[in-house]
Amino acid sequence: MKCEKIFLYEDRTDVFLTTYILEDSPAMLDGGSRPAILIIPGGGYIGFSPREGEPVAMKFNSMGYHAFVLQYSHYWEGVRVDDYDYRKGLPVKEHCQYPKPVWEIGMAMLLIREHAKEWLVNVDQIMLAGFSAGAHMAAMYGTNWNRPLITEHFPANVSSMLRPAAMLLGYGLFDYSLNQEITGEFERAFAKASYVSFLGTAEPDEAILREISPVNYVSPDTPPAFLWATAQDHMVPVENTFRMGAALAKSGVPVEVHVFEQGEHGLALATEAGAGKDWQMNRRAAAWTELAGSWIAERFPLPVGGRKASETENIM
Amino acid sequence: MKCEKIFLYEDRTDVFLTTYILEDSPAMLDGGSRPAILIIPGGGYIGFSPREGEPVAMKFNSMGYHAFVLQYSHYWEGVRVDDYDYRKGLPVKEHCQYPKPVWEIGMAMLLIREHAKEWLVNVDQIMLAGFSAGAHMAAMYGTNWNRPLITEHFPANVSSMLRPAAMLLGYGLFDYSLNQEITGEFERAFAKASYVSFLGTAEPDEAILREISPVNYVSPDTPPAFLWATAQDHMVPVENTFRMGAALAKSGVPVEVHVFEQGEHGLALATEAGAGKDWQMNRRAAAWTELAGSWIAERFPLPVGGRKASETENIM
Repeated sequence: MKCEKIFLYEDRTDVFLTTYILEDSPAMLDGGSRPAILIIPGGGYIGFSPREGEPVAMKFNSMGYHAFVLQYSHYWEGVRVDDYDYRKGLPVKEHCQYPKPVWEIGMAMLLIREHAKEWLVNVDQIMLAGFSAGAHMAAMYGTNWNRPLITEHFPANVSSMLRPAAMLLGYGLFDYSLNQEITGEFERAFAKASYVSFLGTAEPDEAILREISPVNYVSPDTPPAFLWATAQDHMVPVENTFRMGAALAKSGVPVEVHVFEQGEHGLALATEAGAGKDWQMNRRAAAWTELAGSWIAERFPLPVGGRKASETENIM
Repeated sequence: MKCEKIFLYEDRTDVFLTTYILEDSPAMLDGGSRPAILIIPGGGYIGFSPREGEPVAMKFNSMGYHAFVLQYSHYWEGVRVDDYDYRKGLPVKEHCQYPKPVWEIGMAMLLIREHAKEWLVNVDQIMLAGFSAGAHMAAMYGTNWNRPLITEHFPANVSSMLRPAAMLLGYGLFDYSLNQEITGEFERAFAKASYVSFLGTAEPDEAILREISPVNYVSPDTPPAFLWATAQDHMVPVENTFRMGAALAKSGVPVEVHVFEQGEHGLALATEAGAGKDWQMNRRAAAWTELAGSWIAERFPLPVGGRKASETENIM
């Protein structure tokens, strides 16, 4: 495994791609390339959730896919999201303003493509996996990869390389007009802090909320999507997932949706491998990874068995 | 993830431990230590099977356990096991003679213990996972960790640190007297080459075969064991697994045994993640990893949920 940090900017240490690149051998794919999953953890654009990073990479690595975790521009550096009273509000910071984090997905996509030969990545099989705010970013990127929001930030000659092959989106924010349905005092304060973090204002107007909502950009060019969420989510209303699923289906985009009855916001893998608290483990919701794995495997099977068999090959 | 090679000898590059150490964070175990799996791939003592190394590490990493892969002393370096006609025989080499590979398991155990604080490893939860010849080594080690074969090689003050916490043994060689039941021409030639590799003779006598058979050392001091194999195995008769299971049960050692009806020797994970050929994928036998995972989880649960809950913790 090649595990290293690659910084996206020369002058910043807070934005980087961590690689989880599987070793090949003549006994395995013998130089064949693998699909890759670019993972975008959540954290409300305020923090960066480690539970939605490496543990998810491990899960997809264990299925035989390369994985990458993108730490994108976000508000805090070195502060735990839950060590702050968001009711106090937040001063605006420039370094994390939208659409910078979404552009960083494109930078990561190109970086992976650049190294595809060395890393044995199949460039037509680079998928995004996002969680919460990361699912929002991934969905904004996946619905805008061929529109000015993204293309104007990159040279014209790379535009065809920006398309993700598929999206796995967990408990995502896809329609910001639904945020008015959030009732919890903490959840509302956190949503405002999130707006400050990536929009620079605690009170964005309706036009801005429309502009940043992926449901409004779904088209037949949007890549296939696997959505999952929990019906009980108090932070991000599950209707986000239903509306996104409906928009994708309407555009003829292959879509699969799994909404589990129980579970709060932020389950990540929903197993002990990515949990810090008991409530973050949920045996039924944990089924999402196997469901996602078989969905990917059907679309992008690993190139196993492409070589000639011989009597001695059952040794290794 | 900390992924690095640590060489066991200063003057050799062919023997090393590869680390797959999971990142922790305040949002996960917050400094809590994890169980670890020390993986011993097979290869008949002739080669070293990559399919039984990193892919297995990824699987146990994905369950939240640290993993290590030991490349131990073996015959070939840089030659594929299946690129040689074993009917020609092999000249003896010294560097890979038994019990050196078994001692190397002890060296790896101590190395992991030495770094336990830094790597957040629970020293009472270091397990062995072996495959084929690697399962033989692991079982020899696990049945002899407190006997002269092992203890005389290490200083007296570390002897209590040599005990593995459990063993996961796939299609292992546990009773070498069963090798006389091998009928295939290739399989017999390969078995002889294996003898040359680790015993220095193609025709070891019965006393030697008894001496290197773990079934003869099982005692109440042997750690709990999870055995799995396939009934169809033409290289290593499945009776090895039955005899080992019986010996463990008789000694009162906790033991679990899964023998799948179908599947040739060397399935490793039995999924596309560790396969190079179609026959190496077997959906039913692939259940062994989940069975092993739940067996471990019951014995050594991850220390999740040890901290106080607060209203903001559902964010990350």
